[in-house]
Amino acid sequence: MCGIFGIANHPEAARMTYLGLYALQHRGQESAGISSSDGEQVYTHKARGLVADIFKEETLDRLKGSNAVGHTRYSTAGGNLEGNAQPIVVKYVACARGAVALCHNGNLINAGSLRMELARQGAVFQSTSDSEIVLHLLARSQSDDLLSALGEMLPQIQGAFSLLLLTEDALIGVRDANGFRPLCLGQLGDSYVLASESCAFDLIGAKYLREVEPGEVVVIRGSQLQSVKALHAEPRLSKCIFEHVYFARRDSMVFGRTVQSSRDRMGRALAEESPADADIVVPIPDSAVAAAVGYSQQSGIPLAFGLMRNHYVGRTFIEPESRIRNFGAKVKYNPVRELLAGKRVVLVDDSIVRGTTTRKLVKMVRNAGAAEVHMRVSCPPTISPCFYGVDTPTKKELIASSHTIDEICRYIQADSLAYLSLEGLLNAVQSGPGEFCTACYTGRYPLNLADALPNMKEEDEGRQLDLWEVALKETV
Amino acid sequence: MCGIFGIANHPEAARMTYLGLYALQHRGQESAGISSSDGEQVYTHKARGLVADIFKEETLDRLKGSNAVGHTRYSTAGGNLEGNAQPIVVKYVACARGAVALCHNGNLINAGSLRMELARQGAVFQSTSDSEIVLHLLARSQSDDLLSALGEMLPQIQGAFSLLLLTEDALIGVRDANGFRPLCLGQLGDSYVLASESCAFDLIGAKYLREVEPGEVVVIRGSQLQSVKALHAEPRLSKCIFEHVYFARRDSMVFGRTVQSSRDRMGRALAEESPADADIVVPIPDSAVAAAVGYSQQSGIPLAFGLMRNHYVGRTFIEPESRIRNFGAKVKYNPVRELLAGKRVVLVDDSIVRGTTTRKLVKMVRNAGAAEVHMRVSCPPTISPCFYGVDTPTKKELIASSHTIDEICRYIQADSLAYLSLEGLLNAVQSGPGEFCTACYTGRYPLNLADALPNMKEEDEGRQLDLWEVALKETV
Amino acid sequence: MCGIFGIANHPEAARMTYLGLYALQHRGQESAGISSSDGEQVYTHKARGLVADIFKEETLDRLKGSNAVGHTRYSTAGGNLEGNAQPIVVKYVACARGAVALCHNGNLINAGSLRMELARQGAVFQSTSDSEIVLHLLARSQSDDLLSALGEMLPQIQGAFSLLLLTEDALIGVRDANGFRPLCLGQLGDSYVLASESCAFDLIGAKYLREVEPGEVVVIRGSQLQSVKALHAEPRLSKCIFEHVYFARRDSMVFGRTVQSSRDRMGRALAEESPADADIVVPIPDSAVAAAVGYSQQSGIPLAFGLMRNHYVGRTFIEPESRIRNFGAKVKYNPVRELLAGKRVVLVDDSIVRGTTTRKLVKMVRNAGAAEVHMRVSCPPTISPCFYGVDTPTKKELIASSHTIDEICRYIQADSLAYLSLEGLLNAVQSGPGEFCTACYTGRYPLNLADALPNMKEEDEGRQLDLWEVALKETV
Amino acid sequence: MCGIFGIANHPEAARMTYLGLYALQHRGQESAGISSSDGEQVYTHKARGLVADIFKEETLDRLKGSNAVGHTRYSTAGGNLEGNAQPIVVKYVACARGAVALCHNGNLINAGSLRMELARQGAVFQSTSDSEIVLHLLARSQSDDLLSALGEMLPQIQGAFSLLLLTEDALIGVRDANGFRPLCLGQLGDSYVLASESCAFDLIGAKYLREVEPGEVVVIRGSQLQSVKALHAEPRLSKCIFEHVYFARRDSMVFGRTVQSSRDRMGRALAEESPADADIVVPIPDSAVAAAVGYSQQSGIPLAFGLMRNHYVGRTFIEPESRIRNFGAKVKYNPVRELLAGKRVVLVDDSIVRGTTTRKLVKMVRNAGAAEVHMRVSCPPTISPCFYGVDTPTKKELIASSHTIDEICRYIQADSLAYLSLEGLLNAVQSGPGEFCTACYTGRYPLNLADALPNMKEEDEGRQLDLWEVALKETV
Repeated sequence: MCGIFGIANHPEAARMTYLGLYALQHRGQESAGISSSDGEQVYTHKARGLVADIFKEETLDRLKGSNAVGHTRYSTAGGNLEGNAQPIVVKYVACARGAVALCHNGNLINAGSLRMELARQGAVFQSTSDSEIVLHLLARSQSDDLLSALGEMLPQIQGAFSLLLLTEDALIGVRDANGFRPLCLGQLGDSYVLASESCAFDLIGAKYLREVEPGEVVVIRGSQLQSVKALHAEPRLSKCIFEHVYFARRDSMVFGRTVQSSRDRMGRALAEESPADADIVVPIPDSAVAAAVGYSQQSGIPLAFGLMRNHYVGRTFIEPESRIRNFGAKVKYNPVRELLAGKRVVLVDDSIVRGTTTRKLVKMVRNAGAAEVHMRVSCPPTISPCFYGVDTPTKKELIASSHTIDEICRYIQADSLAYLSLEGLLNAVQSGPGEFCTACYTGRYPLNLADALPNMKEEDEGRQLDLWEVALKETV
Repeated sequence: MCGIFGIANHPEAARMTYLGLYALQHRGQESAGISSSDGEQVYTHKARGLVADIFKEETLDRLKGSNAVGHTRYSTAGGNLEGNAQPIVVKYVACARGAVALCHNGNLINAGSLRMELARQGAVFQSTSDSEIVLHLLARSQSDDLLSALGEMLPQIQGAFSLLLLTEDALIGVRDANGFRPLCLGQLGDSYVLASESCAFDLIGAKYLREVEPGEVVVIRGSQLQSVKALHAEPRLSKCIFEHVYFARRDSMVFGRTVQSSRDRMGRALAEESPADADIVVPIPDSAVAAAVGYSQQSGIPLAFGLMRNHYVGRTFIEPESRIRNFGAKVKYNPVRELLAGKRVVLVDDSIVRGTTTRKLVKMVRNAGAAEVHMRVSCPPTISPCFYGVDTPTKKELIASSHTIDEICRYIQADSLAYLSLEGLLNAVQSGPGEFCTACYTGRYPLNLADALPNMKEEDEGRQLDLWEVALKETV
Repeated sequence: MCGIFGIANHPEAARMTYLGLYALQHRGQESAGISSSDGEQVYTHKARGLVADIFKEETLDRLKGSNAVGHTRYSTAGGNLEGNAQPIVVKYVACARGAVALCHNGNLINAGSLRMELARQGAVFQSTSDSEIVLHLLARSQSDDLLSALGEMLPQIQGAFSLLLLTEDALIGVRDANGFRPLCLGQLGDSYVLASESCAFDLIGAKYLREVEPGEVVVIRGSQLQSVKALHAEPRLSKCIFEHVYFARRDSMVFGRTVQSSRDRMGRALAEESPADADIVVPIPDSAVAAAVGYSQQSGIPLAFGLMRNHYVGRTFIEPESRIRNFGAKVKYNPVRELLAGKRVVLVDDSIVRGTTTRKLVKMVRNAGAAEVHMRVSCPPTISPCFYGVDTPTKKELIASSHTIDEICRYIQADSLAYLSLEGLLNAVQSGPGEFCTACYTGRYPLNLADALPNMKEEDEGRQLDLWEVALKETV
Repeated sequence: MCGIFGIANHPEAARMTYLGLYALQHRGQESAGISSSDGEQVYTHKARGLVADIFKEETLDRLKGSNAVGHTRYSTAGGNLEGNAQPIVVKYVACARGAVALCHNGNLINAGSLRMELARQGAVFQSTSDSEIVLHLLARSQSDDLLSALGEMLPQIQGAFSLLLLTEDALIGVRDANGFRPLCLGQLGDSYVLASESCAFDLIGAKYLREVEPGEVVVIRGSQLQSVKALHAEPRLSKCIFEHVYFARRDSMVFGRTVQSSRDRMGRALAEESPADADIVVPIPDSAVAAAVGYSQQSGIPLAFGLMRNHYVGRTFIEPESRIRNFGAKVKYNPVRELLAGKRVVLVDDSIVRGTTTRKLVKMVRNAGAAEVHMRVSCPPTISPCFYGVDTPTKKELIASSHTIDEICRYIQADSLAYLSLEGLLNAVQSGPGEFCTACYTGRYPLNLADALPNMKEEDEGRQLDLWEVALKETV
């Protein structure tokens, strides 16, 4: 997961991008970067860490020009972390007549075979990232027109991608034909703005216009925007439903609808489908609050903020050597005894992945005196990993992939456990027919993953096995 | 404002202190420090920044020994910031037979005259902090017993102080006779623990025992605790009511009662005293959430999280040069249009200081489509500055010191405005007679401030004038 | 100018490389880097600054494996400095069956046309450095054998290059057919070592074996070394005479002979060719000391260290705003009045480039009381820029390119000025016929520079004009 | 050992001090600091590291005002290093009517008893440094005139001290009555300048005026200098002869005479006293070069720079785990084989302390092919530690304290060994009768050290024993 932002024709392009990334910080805390262009050169600064730590006045001053793009990157488990920060910048691409900076949100499933073929032809790779492939394909085009080159390149890549490209004189936004990942278009005076979520527009005072459409390419030069249908949008789209369940900020527009409303409806539907005889509804803060409010209002059971979240959690937190019970959960959450003591609690969360954290939280709530704990999850059981850009563990690690709801309930030691139904979820996000990808809940993948097989890095064995399994079955 | 933490007789004293400070991070983000002692030497590390950034594995490894104290410091406006970080350490104090480290939460009101007198006698000051005076007074004692020296020193200092002292072989906790600032005593196995708030105990798994009493000194050596009544507790105490209104963490015990319950009662009382004909109750996150929940439940008006808080706000945020409307508020909050549009909103906050932020938030809520905005504040109007350790602006800057509620309502452009009554607040915190200091709401100060007059630094002119005014009136 | 070092088959390959770079620090202080390989992966760390500052214990620990290469880079005037640090690493090159790290000392004169052609074919460039081109050419080879691929690549690049390549299982050293830049081969137990100068061998206790020959490729796997004549050595070689005049360390073997002896002979020949009626011989420290000793011993005029060099000169030295006479020279040198006062001084330096520094030093010596200053330079006048890797200013800036020795003497305000003759210099370095490149003193360039014309970066205008001029004349 | 610098009445006082410290960097590389004053406040910046690394443009900009003092500190073995950086600053001293910053070069021998007495009286110590005591004594004065207070304080401290004091409106220089450590007075336009050595004046273009006399206090306000004889100069002075032997820069005036000339005379006298039948004279660079030149010129044996010094030695140099022969010496020096091979070598150094380094260097020279190695030292054998500010090892560690010259010669494996005689040394520095302290060569200490006994820190056991021994004997 990542956040991307771009702006054209603005006197403070780099600063606006800084603010945009700041608003998109929740989409990635590992690294961030900005590239800007003044019509003659592309300037870049990227580093590990949070946006507010990486950029200083002087750094932004060096990022000259009126066009800029930026990227925030989610924490990944391994690999050469420094080399993976974006934007990826190349000094010269013929069809762009100069330098190009690229920001990518998503995951190319045929990265492996493309990479192998490119290497065979003599391409030289600087990173192991799939995003770099996009630039190699573009550079190989014999067309001297960027738009034609994009038209040649795009059909070759498969998977999930919302892309921003910054050339010396243009800003380009691209969204894959399935529409996996979001990309919004906005306006600020004479400037067009592109961002993963609309909350980035709010901070800089830009107006939300619309989504970039699946398969659409928008080319922005100065104050002019040109739209091209570069790829035929798939008849069945694959918008990532997890953006509405968990990932996006509650105050954003994503895929043309507001996340807050979706989560409220998830909570309400969950209350209808799976009521509980309880005294209070307690959300796991912060992401499950909206669904918990919906649950509370539908059920009439009062809301209580029985878990307190610590907002100063740093990434290099030092653990004590002596054993402190449930330390990991305690660093993040503290129970509020007064609210929980003696109460029958509906605990609302937006997912159960491995089950270990949920188990600790249930215990924490019980130790604080709760009489009963009824776990409610605002989406269906997560049974399959994502291959389109969400950082999920392997299938084996997903507790729901191999356990019944009863078994999970016993494992997390709750008094009851219920998930929102798939139908309930699709209604909550007001999905049109075939509009959303629900592979993580159904195991039905919208793209043929057989091609993806040889592509994975060898170290990534768990994920390889997942893919084998998927590839042997039918896809959607 | 500051947070303090101490632990004795623990094999990982410095790490436990690190965790304790981490839990008390909300009490101060400017700087932090830890001193530890192994019976022979005192080790110290302190720096500007957040606890998680300041301390690394190797830093903690160097803080040897089984006793430790720590301090987090609130942002202050000026002065030699680096020199003000605590613990303050001196290499040799005769009565302690070695080095002493001091952590201080509070404010001495006779610091100026003490300082002048000490300088006259040849004392050499390293900082402009009032806390350093405590160590000079202690050092001057001709007693060679630390407890006796404390007994000589304490009556000389006036004002608000919860102190932790670390000597080479003991941990000492002190609380002033008025009990202005909190100090809790806890236990973890064979270790006694002292902390500003009980949430620090929760993180390390320690048990809350009781408050250190006003005027009490506790001396901890190994697993033994000795309690001494060093100062006569005042018949009328002066516990800081603002701890319950705003400062302390909701999940803490402070002054022997839970903050969450106090805030819930404030919200309920506010709803009773000042109902509103509205559709939703919206808290200013995060501190006003508990009061808003109380208001919602008492009034039956549903709660809606119509303002989203950005939790990645860094301290060196770079502003754009171009004007973005209400930028300051936007960096911190974003309205959730879906929840606010067309609604009559009760906006709940826990204080209005200058009024400028409130004015921006009301506007933000209105711009997001709210039909009406009814402002409700969970305490009385703040009319007087604090001289006992809370960082308030000068009287002139406090909007309620010179404006009626109607005038404030017009200034913040709300449809209505109401504050909780003083009586309502005292009931909410379950105050015994004369238990709390309410000077910020009443202008009646529990200590004779006339002595404080010549003490203030000259630069601090606004505050000087406030003190003149107060000193000319009667004190409580 | 740069320093390069490589070692194979050593349990502490990265640490040995660190020591090697440390000994080669004089060849470049801008940036440094090391890549190591453990047979499966290539690890890299590079940064701006000095070797001792860049590498820490933990950095070296992460550079695993028994093969390693390293690079120190000379300060360059502009460009994207961070991107220019070496080794340059690519993740996958087909003929190497994995990652490759490259270190390059020298300058490719046909870089521009190669780059243009590669970009036309779709190559994606990460830097503006000519060194990156080597990897692209290698990657493009359809041979799946690294040695064959090198055999295809090498004839395509023209200019000066000593290269080290690290693959996942081999260390490779390459030297161009003219032998412009040095590359020494050494042995340390079962390990072969390669370095720009033999002083790097001394530090780690390795034995100097021989030079890598012009046109030779050495491939080292484990303890085995394979030598291949990949390029026909030119009948007229072009070893850089400036290495012996100034650049290399006095205690090194370079081009199979010792620098100390060469410089001593330069000084002696200079004394014979251009004696002076003087009292003392004063070297400009540190590089001219050896020549001055030779001059003193040949002439019988006693040596005096009349200029003191400050060895703590940092790179970010802050100048005062007020004018201090000859400040720039003073930061680096201070005259020793006792030695200079009343004396007729022979001042010995190893080059006069722009003349401005020499002028300041002559003045400094005179102000310290010298009666006469006779300037002696241990090489001929520098009249032409270098296009083979030495960082010289443009022709216009070289004072000797447009002024007679008399004019220069008047400009630097010396009482007399003499340079060593070309013949004297060639004798001093014991040059065989056609062994050394003397283009900087003669303007006769060993390679046809006409090809170089379209290659230069546009910003580099001064150098462009130099090349035009050279190209219009005959080359050697 | 330390370097100190001060300037008054200069618009760029802090920058001039920065330059001065830069020139005095050889007197201390552990830490450095500057305090400046603008008549109202004292500003300070100090840190570990080299001057050029510690101070940036912005740091210097913050050091406002026209008076400033600075300090560079020599590496010390242990203790709380950060707390020991100077200037030491206190916020308020009555007799100075404000803040005071102190820089101290030297060592107080009665620090321990003063400290004990001050602590008994209630003084609070921030550091373990003896320099802090000066400020406490000053603060205790009941005089409200700084000069009178100095007059009270100075007789109480015993030992070696050159002091600079910066108050809000004055710059003060003080030198002890024995004149142990140097302090020079200079002039730059309307500004007076004070520095440990005159090389600091040269860099900023200031004129050397004279030494501050033993026992003299100079008070500089604006462009006015007032001189007071605060202490009676001892009839027998105790100028540190080691400044001329090794410590000061060769291009400096120290104690009113030039170091270069002294060292030249030492070398000549050594050649006369202890000739050698040899082919070349080789100095240990850099400090022994001047003496070696003298030796060479007196003896007629040619000088050869047979050892090359590495000037990039960092303080955190990482050693390899595998054993490299004589690694420690190799990192610092490399032999130049061409010069040494087959030669009978006179190796000149300026001291032999423990003998271990000399032994390595002799071996290194022999391994490089020297036929014979004759060691010559330009001072007498070092037999006693210094208690007046030079960082020497304990008596037991000084090889000459317990071994004859023959034994030392065998230990270092030289063919012959000779030291300069005491008489030769005193002549070389042109000492008047009783002008220099030669305790390190004679064991006769100019101050009664009996008082010093209880003062030493307990950890410093070796030094304690040395003092016992000395105290039991007669002093000079």
